[in-house]
Amino acid sequence: MPGNSIGRVFTITTFGESHGRVVGCVIDGCPPGIILNEEDLSEDLDRRKPGQSNISTQRNEEDVPEIISGVFQGKTTGQPITIIIKNRDSDSSSYEAIKEIFRPGHADYTYFKKYGIRDYRGGGRSSGRETAARVAAGAVAKKILKDIKITAYTKQIGKIKAEKTDYEEIENNNVRCPDRDAAEKMQEYVEKLKKDGDSAGGIIECVIQNAPAGLGEPVFDKLDADISKAVMSIGATKAIEFGKGFEAAELKGSVNNDEMYIEDEKVRFKSNNAGGILGGISTGQDIVFRVAVKPTPSIKKEQLTITKEKKEVAVNIEGRHDPCICPRIVPVIEAMAAVVLADHLLKQKAQCS
Amino acid sequence: MPGNSIGRVFTITTFGESHGRVVGCVIDGCPPGIILNEEDLSEDLDRRKPGQSNISTQRNEEDVPEIISGVFQGKTTGQPITIIIKNRDSDSSSYEAIKEIFRPGHADYTYFKKYGIRDYRGGGRSSGRETAARVAAGAVAKKILKDIKITAYTKQIGKIKAEKTDYEEIENNNVRCPDRDAAEKMQEYVEKLKKDGDSAGGIIECVIQNAPAGLGEPVFDKLDADISKAVMSIGATKAIEFGKGFEAAELKGSVNNDEMYIEDEKVRFKSNNAGGILGGISTGQDIVFRVAVKPTPSIKKEQLTITKEKKEVAVNIEGRHDPCICPRIVPVIEAMAAVVLADHLLKQKAQCS
Amino acid sequence: MPGNSIGRVFTITTFGESHGRVVGCVIDGCPPGIILNEEDLSEDLDRRKPGQSNISTQRNEEDVPEIISGVFQGKTTGQPITIIIKNRDSDSSSYEAIKEIFRPGHADYTYFKKYGIRDYRGGGRSSGRETAARVAAGAVAKKILKDIKITAYTKQIGKIKAEKTDYEEIENNNVRCPDRDAAEKMQEYVEKLKKDGDSAGGIIECVIQNAPAGLGEPVFDKLDADISKAVMSIGATKAIEFGKGFEAAELKGSVNNDEMYIEDEKVRFKSNNAGGILGGISTGQDIVFRVAVKPTPSIKKEQLTITKEKKEVAVNIEGRHDPCICPRIVPVIEAMAAVVLADHLLKQKAQCS
Amino acid sequence: MPGNSIGRVFTITTFGESHGRVVGCVIDGCPPGIILNEEDLSEDLDRRKPGQSNISTQRNEEDVPEIISGVFQGKTTGQPITIIIKNRDSDSSSYEAIKEIFRPGHADYTYFKKYGIRDYRGGGRSSGRETAARVAAGAVAKKILKDIKITAYTKQIGKIKAEKTDYEEIENNNVRCPDRDAAEKMQEYVEKLKKDGDSAGGIIECVIQNAPAGLGEPVFDKLDADISKAVMSIGATKAIEFGKGFEAAELKGSVNNDEMYIEDEKVRFKSNNAGGILGGISTGQDIVFRVAVKPTPSIKKEQLTITKEKKEVAVNIEGRHDPCICPRIVPVIEAMAAVVLADHLLKQKAQCS
Repeated sequence: MPGNSIGRVFTITTFGESHGRVVGCVIDGCPPGIILNEEDLSEDLDRRKPGQSNISTQRNEEDVPEIISGVFQGKTTGQPITIIIKNRDSDSSSYEAIKEIFRPGHADYTYFKKYGIRDYRGGGRSSGRETAARVAAGAVAKKILKDIKITAYTKQIGKIKAEKTDYEEIENNNVRCPDRDAAEKMQEYVEKLKKDGDSAGGIIECVIQNAPAGLGEPVFDKLDADISKAVMSIGATKAIEFGKGFEAAELKGSVNNDEMYIEDEKVRFKSNNAGGILGGISTGQDIVFRVAVKPTPSIKKEQLTITKEKKEVAVNIEGRHDPCICPRIVPVIEAMAAVVLADHLLKQKAQCS
Repeated sequence: MPGNSIGRVFTITTFGESHGRVVGCVIDGCPPGIILNEEDLSEDLDRRKPGQSNISTQRNEEDVPEIISGVFQGKTTGQPITIIIKNRDSDSSSYEAIKEIFRPGHADYTYFKKYGIRDYRGGGRSSGRETAARVAAGAVAKKILKDIKITAYTKQIGKIKAEKTDYEEIENNNVRCPDRDAAEKMQEYVEKLKKDGDSAGGIIECVIQNAPAGLGEPVFDKLDADISKAVMSIGATKAIEFGKGFEAAELKGSVNNDEMYIEDEKVRFKSNNAGGILGGISTGQDIVFRVAVKPTPSIKKEQLTITKEKKEVAVNIEGRHDPCICPRIVPVIEAMAAVVLADHLLKQKAQCS
Repeated sequence: MPGNSIGRVFTITTFGESHGRVVGCVIDGCPPGIILNEEDLSEDLDRRKPGQSNISTQRNEEDVPEIISGVFQGKTTGQPITIIIKNRDSDSSSYEAIKEIFRPGHADYTYFKKYGIRDYRGGGRSSGRETAARVAAGAVAKKILKDIKITAYTKQIGKIKAEKTDYEEIENNNVRCPDRDAAEKMQEYVEKLKKDGDSAGGIIECVIQNAPAGLGEPVFDKLDADISKAVMSIGATKAIEFGKGFEAAELKGSVNNDEMYIEDEKVRFKSNNAGGILGGISTGQDIVFRVAVKPTPSIKKEQLTITKEKKEVAVNIEGRHDPCICPRIVPVIEAMAAVVLADHLLKQKAQCS
Repeated sequence: MPGNSIGRVFTITTFGESHGRVVGCVIDGCPPGIILNEEDLSEDLDRRKPGQSNISTQRNEEDVPEIISGVFQGKTTGQPITIIIKNRDSDSSSYEAIKEIFRPGHADYTYFKKYGIRDYRGGGRSSGRETAARVAAGAVAKKILKDIKITAYTKQIGKIKAEKTDYEEIENNNVRCPDRDAAEKMQEYVEKLKKDGDSAGGIIECVIQNAPAGLGEPVFDKLDADISKAVMSIGATKAIEFGKGFEAAELKGSVNNDEMYIEDEKVRFKSNNAGGILGGISTGQDIVFRVAVKPTPSIKKEQLTITKEKKEVAVNIEGRHDPCICPRIVPVIEAMAAVVLADHLLKQKAQCS
């Protein structure tokens, strides 16, 4: 069954494998007349690419997007926009060793059970490399969002939490943390794990500013439901919460409810425990959600696992792997949020007379 | 834009308002030849219905499902199955008082911003009453699942956590908690809040047993992504996590990875930190997820809010409301999980030759 | 697999069987704030209902639509609109005789092969009765179309063709033909066949006036492609053509092309051989298509056929059947055209900034 | 709004413009394990390519398909299959002359009205070149169809009709007509028109053999409805009819019904007036439909038209154009039929237990 498309009005379809010829996407439903070129895509792709620091994989790879359809004379035409990113530095030889092995924590076993195929080259389609296509699509989505601003950052790595949220700081450190002191500790922690051949997980927070009230399509295509699906479809994500999230479970209604008042004739809320969404529809406040990212499953430490032939075997995963994918997943989460927001913005237009 | 359908092969569409004539659903894509009658739906509907105990709303309402299409001589025909549940005890008069008011924590304001309409009668479509239709659809989905067993229960209310998981206990107490001692404390806690005119949130855990490996459609319609959407589309849910969930953020890869081994020629995992899903596809282990439920927003305590005319006003929400919806949301979460699983089971069939 | 929904932004789902409790539909995606009540639906339903004249079936049945969701205080709310029409005069006893028999020209055999079920009561879901739900949905769609006017009529029955197109005449005769003289001959012809226990086919023409240029979504959801699907999904339709249609095959390009010119600063076409659609997008001219309707398969004349047990048998179909369904299919074709146009009108809005 | 995907289980999305870098498609939902390589695609692409004879355009272009995702070690993986065909001989200079002009009979005007964009280079996305992507996708679909055989051919050009149907003859003449004598007359007729700077239309017939009974998803996704949409989405098609089609309008029920009998314990029909589909579901007989193809709108004869600036102007379309596209549309119609059949075959599997 097809599962590689998301979005109903602004629809993206991704394709391509980690060690195939390309990864890419088709964007269908993008309005015509929007200025778009390859440079628009590169900024976010550069934030996702490997080799940005010593705590991300050293696969030295420039992600060069090529727009091969849907743009004419520098503008979108309303036709499907196809973007491809060629795979360059994709040496599959290091994967020969694990050809017959299902790596723990990876999708090797489940893909084999589902499709009867073992594309051992770098995880094939389940690789993080597929997210380059998402980031490219997200960059196009952002063009539609105009004033709506999406900012994600590393909130926590291991047990180290950001205590401050200084947006200016985010791109100044290797872990994309908005708190410089925490960032330093996070970096040290990850480097230590890397030396041990181990890896770290973390939490990403994402804030969407300036989204108008009224986005979301109850009762199933609610804005938070659609963001949840989009974000939980990214590899390595294990949880999502909006506003107070799990903490809301411990609160009383009198504390959790966001009271409303009027200021300068505008509707205001005394708090934002809801995370900007009520009944699946945006309130006009900031939309705030957090995502749990599991530690990278590829580790050099020895682990027990099995082969295709159901033999037990010990494995150490060699090769270049991020000891923590938090910094690189940040632009992917932003991209998926952008795709969902663009989709809902256009949906809401269809309703207006 | 339409947003009231979910599922691609097993598709449900819900309709109806809290204080309208009916709530109901159309199920399209149910295979023919399945034995189905109204009693099959009643068991779960009774677990969701109001008035089950002194900590759920006293709206005294028998939910009587009527199958008005798609079944002939006691069996599904492959045609759309329509189920309606008439609204009986729907006295809208208590809502007259809040006709012009946006209740804090409710979807009143956002529905008004989106649709320009204020259906003040019991929350209209955003009411929990809509979930009766989901539960009916879920009961049909369960017929397709056969051996796959879905069990949800209250894991936590306020700060009180279940320490044991005794499935036999779940339906023996008013809060649907699998730990009798915790259940008693939860019940006391909720009753106390009820007396104060306040309300409680909680956490529901759901376990899916016997799901085969191979369900899920990467890269967007992953099994966890689809469950996340389905569950987060239920009103009052604010977070979802699979397996270790947010805790995985604090773990090292060497701890979080589930090692694999062979026992009796079968594939086994040493742990289930992944919650039964890897790369968006089921592993064959139990699928485990937890959901945060916010405290009921309808409280008798005075809160500040605004009117349609942008006037500030203090409001006490009168009427019959659950001081904690955890016990009643349990069958709704099971239903949404069942709908997603049925959809993916049928999807997987389409692939096989 | 689900197949009972059509439309992407304005989506209708029909349900119900000929001799079940109801036929009905859910309309999802209808914009809020539109005035709508049951009388709005009755006009077209009355044009479709049986028993209108001696050449339509004498099943004496008032089709009374009930809107059971999605309308509040006389206006649509943006929520799913559910309409049910109860089946009253549905005596299944006359179908007992054909319980084991596959009627020639009917879907009895194919439904049995597909679903393994024989709902013998009046054709079950393949009955023309299902179209009552389409007509109700079409009446809602027409509310969105505003100035766009859809008019269908009987162009031909047997070999008798309308030579004139007088819109005023259409509803003045029993066959809904816009040419009074032809109408009389058609009526005579059908009555004669009825006496013989036989039936007649015909051609319906449909004209859509005032559709703006720009509707249609290449390359697959073209306006003519979507109309074709919608119309060809009506039982008994066997062909559709736009503009010159099959005749275009015989023309030269220099004759078939519609030349353009300017009149009063407006774009004009010298002809409308294209039927108002070029490249799958409306030109702003009248959209014109014709549909072939096969003769009613239920005839009293003896025919050879087989039983479920693969026995050969001769059958005479007794009961009340239209000797020609042309007059009653006219509002159904209008309804499907209206549903497609409403869908595309709303789609086009989603694109505009 | 997106409109570039078709099929629900076997889904194809096409992209690319006539004079852009590529045309191509993504196929999502193809089962894994199917042997597939570029040569599998070339046979049909060669039948569609320009320059096959003196009555097709002389654009000298080898269509070389490249599979850039979804195939590993010569087999499909269950992941999206992306195929691109680079545009080579795409000299846009001849289009400079018509940059400001809307060509009669083309989609120039409607695309401009819809998108506000004038991609004058060879018709952009509305060009017949887009159908190369459809043919590639159809070749993949055919792999799923196995024994189901789809054969299309030119039944009529201008007023010259094939009187015989000799499948062996089809690929032996330039017009793909199964009647050698008619083929010669057709060729002469088209050559004469070409000399005059004019063009011819025609009728294509398509026969699908060995399709099992039971394909089609009532009440909207009926097999004939879906084929109609797929075929009518091809540029230049203006009509479609199944079985007797428009002729059925003139028949009596007693003549049109296909009587059933038993032969060698198998279900047989005395005729196939229905064209192999009853109630939207295949009967197991041959599925037969015919398609009207309009004469090529690009003609050298002078025509009146208008410019973007609403000025009237006379235009002669220079360049290389097929005087009759019938021979080249044959594989496109086969491809669309194959895509629909593959989709419905996989759909039917999802239902079976």
